Amino acid sequence: MSDWAQSDIGRAEPDAIIIRGRDLASELMGKVTFTELTFLLVQGREPSAGEAALLDAVLVSLADHGLTPTALAARLTYTGAPESLQGAVAAGLLGAGTVFLGVVEDTAAFLEPVVAEADGDDERLTAAARVAVEARLAEGGRIPGLGHPVHKQVDPRTPRMYEIAEQNAVLGPHLRALRLVADAHRELTGRALPINGAGVGGAALADLGFSSRIVRGFALVARSAGLVAHLAEEMDRPLGMPLFLEVDERSRGV
Amino acid sequence: MSDWAQSDIGRAEPDAIIIRGRDLASELMGKVTFTELTFLLVQGREPSAGEAALLDAVLVSLADHGLTPTALAARLTYTGAPESLQGAVAAGLLGAGTVFLGVVEDTAAFLEPVVAEADGDDERLTAAARVAVEARLAEGGRIPGLGHPVHKQVDPRTPRMYEIAEQNAVLGPHLRALRLVADAHRELTGRALPINGAGVGGAALADLGFSSRIVRGFALVARSAGLVAHLAEEMDRPLGMPLFLEVDERSRGV
Amino acid sequence: MSDWAQSDIGRAEPDAIIIRGRDLASELMGKVTFTELTFLLVQGREPSAGEAALLDAVLVSLADHGLTPTALAARLTYTGAPESLQGAVAAGLLGAGTVFLGVVEDTAAFLEPVVAEADGDDERLTAAARVAVEARLAEGGRIPGLGHPVHKQVDPRTPRMYEIAEQNAVLGPHLRALRLVADAHRELTGRALPINGAGVGGAALADLGFSSRIVRGFALVARSAGLVAHLAEEMDRPLGMPLFLEVDERSRGV
Amino acid sequence: MSDWAQSDIGRAEPDAIIIRGRDLASELMGKVTFTELTFLLVQGREPSAGEAALLDAVLVSLADHGLTPTALAARLTYTGAPESLQGAVAAGLLGAGTVFLGVVEDTAAFLEPVVAEADGDDERLTAAARVAVEARLAEGGRIPGLGHPVHKQVDPRTPRMYEIAEQNAVLGPHLRALRLVADAHRELTGRALPINGAGVGGAALADLGFSSRIVRGFALVARSAGLVAHLAEEMDRPLGMPLFLEVDERSRGV
Repeated sequence: MSDWAQSDIGRAEPDAIIIRGRDLASELMGKVTFTELTFLLVQGREPSAGEAALLDAVLVSLADHGLTPTALAARLTYTGAPESLQGAVAAGLLGAGTVFLGVVEDTAAFLEPVVAEADGDDERLTAAARVAVEARLAEGGRIPGLGHPVHKQVDPRTPRMYEIAEQNAVLGPHLRALRLVADAHRELTGRALPINGAGVGGAALADLGFSSRIVRGFALVARSAGLVAHLAEEMDRPLGMPLFLEVDERSRGV
Repeated sequence: MSDWAQSDIGRAEPDAIIIRGRDLASELMGKVTFTELTFLLVQGREPSAGEAALLDAVLVSLADHGLTPTALAARLTYTGAPESLQGAVAAGLLGAGTVFLGVVEDTAAFLEPVVAEADGDDERLTAAARVAVEARLAEGGRIPGLGHPVHKQVDPRTPRMYEIAEQNAVLGPHLRALRLVADAHRELTGRALPINGAGVGGAALADLGFSSRIVRGFALVARSAGLVAHLAEEMDRPLGMPLFLEVDERSRGV
Repeated sequence: MSDWAQSDIGRAEPDAIIIRGRDLASELMGKVTFTELTFLLVQGREPSAGEAALLDAVLVSLADHGLTPTALAARLTYTGAPESLQGAVAAGLLGAGTVFLGVVEDTAAFLEPVVAEADGDDERLTAAARVAVEARLAEGGRIPGLGHPVHKQVDPRTPRMYEIAEQNAVLGPHLRALRLVADAHRELTGRALPINGAGVGGAALADLGFSSRIVRGFALVARSAGLVAHLAEEMDRPLGMPLFLEVDERSRGV
Repeated sequence: MSDWAQSDIGRAEPDAIIIRGRDLASELMGKVTFTELTFLLVQGREPSAGEAALLDAVLVSLADHGLTPTALAARLTYTGAPESLQGAVAAGLLGAGTVFLGVVEDTAAFLEPVVAEADGDDERLTAAARVAVEARLAEGGRIPGLGHPVHKQVDPRTPRMYEIAEQNAVLGPHLRALRLVADAHRELTGRALPINGAGVGGAALADLGFSSRIVRGFALVARSAGLVAHLAEEMDRPLGMPLFLEVDERSRGV
């Protein structure tokens, strides 16, 4: 078992807990925020102040949007199993798939080869973005990160995320590429679609050095906080049982 | 549906996302950390700087402990369903029950009536702590928050948490009561058990104003970050499949 | 790893799959029903024809009840993550806790000591049932398995289950004790509560030799079939998205 | 809410539970097996005796394979949260993704257009199977349902499933197409790969009239029974905690 039974993330020893090589009690608690710790856990190094600010903005932007299908699923699960808070949170996270939070991952995955192709050159970035959009449109596919059913003109999170990235000097190639993608899409189709909040989050996470394969994980961390808030509210003001009763009544034509 | 279909947590409007009455883009992104947002989401108000520091310390302390059963469950789930990151995170959270993270809730629930009974009076707090410990021991029960299988003398997180609470002037009655509980336990049994990290986390969360019914939720938010880190590592250095193969081989006596 | 890495349930070999010591292909497929296999998997022996009939009746009785909170949670989860059918089924099962399906386990657990106390003697069974009901009522507790919010007079599953057990000569002490419990409750409180379907299912499973700790598992197997049916319907006639949209609209007072 | 709040699957009324238009107590309990009910729930009609026999064989064949990653994940989850059996079963199901049980769905999805193309004509079925294999190989893809890491010559479930289908006169075009697919693959590549048990299960489910989109659901129902058996064994002979302790020890080089 010696080879694979290894993790660089953390371990507990009799007199210390070690996280990514740091002593949890003396080097992390009271010294880093939970956001900085999350960066450290996944990336293996501490973020700069600017990186932490951008990651905070991403997590804050994705934590909650009200009575979404995932929040409703978590609250209905709590209705049936109030003794198992972890079950209700897990049920809420299970709906964080391709339809909603998957855009975070899809956008990062769409931008990764564009940024790789440009290799740091701005002109090549513009060209690569256009080529990628053309290719996707030719396949009849949609461009991830563009358009939103509610925020039809501007997703308010998007300009704010660019502003925060700029102010903290961490506006990197994926965020830049996403703007070029939106431009190319508008030119090629004649339709102006806003960059949505999930898309800009995915681009920001890619700029923070995270692979597109893991960026959905940050959306899950963020969303878990929203779900806990919904469950705290559910304890005081139940919505799951009345929702069920009303659906049940209507389903029988009462 | 008008009565119950309400949530004070968040909602999306065409040109704004509102979280707890604040405009997400202009009032929260770039202005609050994810930890402060989590406090706001659950509590409905922003934390003081000291409260945020204590909540950060709690979340940091509970995020990861290496290859725990929950981390292994998440990694094995990823082995079978790599396309569903949310499923692997959910599987990991589902093991955060009474045996491990439940101590956070149990400790808060044990301390709540002690603190209520004392009603702000220090002497009464000492007496109430002792009475509660006596009653629990008389029932043959264990005192939640005391003792740890690995950290037999001192759980390194505990003194650090008290230090952080004190430095930030947020050391409240639940944390004080937990120390009194440990003292009473030692006097009544003759055995000195350390206050463990889950217990001190539960007491700190109760001092931050959270009901014992919801404190396990913060442990879930914290743990989700650790699970995402394990899944990122699993992508690069798979442990689930070799673990399965070795168990399989041994189970057949190979 | 040699000691604990063992399971008597099943294993795969190059030219055979062995389940509970039987060759899957030649001894089980085409020879036992899935219900008989489920009994074999958990119990380690094949059921008699009567036992299989009773287990079939239990599984059939618990599989579905329409648009329950768990079915709604599964369908809402599918709305967000249609690519992960297992996530939607898992979300639905997570609500199968103490409020709904927990009654199966609670009833079995309530009856176990009653049956043990009687030790096969009918008069002692009557007395033990009455003592158990008195004790529970004295604690201010409810008697599990009695009463139903919709089926106020008779839960139609209950008389049918007794009939099936009788016809198959497998009406055992737990089912008998449950009737005595209902009688004692009526005499002691003056209120006649019907034995509900979850309760009679729990008693039947206990008579089939299953520990109260595992009986909830059969309810989960049964319910998984209902959830798969709901998800198949959701694919053709989506309910999750319109439910979300209506809640969302009403929540904003539209 | 009137339009979408409808389900044809089931509903509870004061004196009856109706499943797919049948009275649960008088028309289903004691009259249909759980397998027949599962067919009815998803398909909306009762199966013939032959169809029920084939579905039983599929469910029996997929229920368990020993200490697989999903069984280990379920048992480790139970270690942390023994109070939540549904959480442990859910965790086990979450690993039933593309790598293992996904083959059931992939095979059915691969065969569907082949069968549709042939439109009941045997010669056209042979041709369509060959065209589909050629196309998939040309894309560099794998043929779902062929090959198995352990059963390198013959997966013992496969000939048995064909035999059962034949004996019950329900050997349909998808099962026939799968054999033609295996033949075409051997001819085109020169490599003989066995049809695996998941593949033959997917073809059988497609022949039973289920869409490829839902067939994975039957694998989940089947697997839930295996998981319940593993959890019953875990209660008596814990494997989760020793597994964790051994991994933990080795990870620290002890």
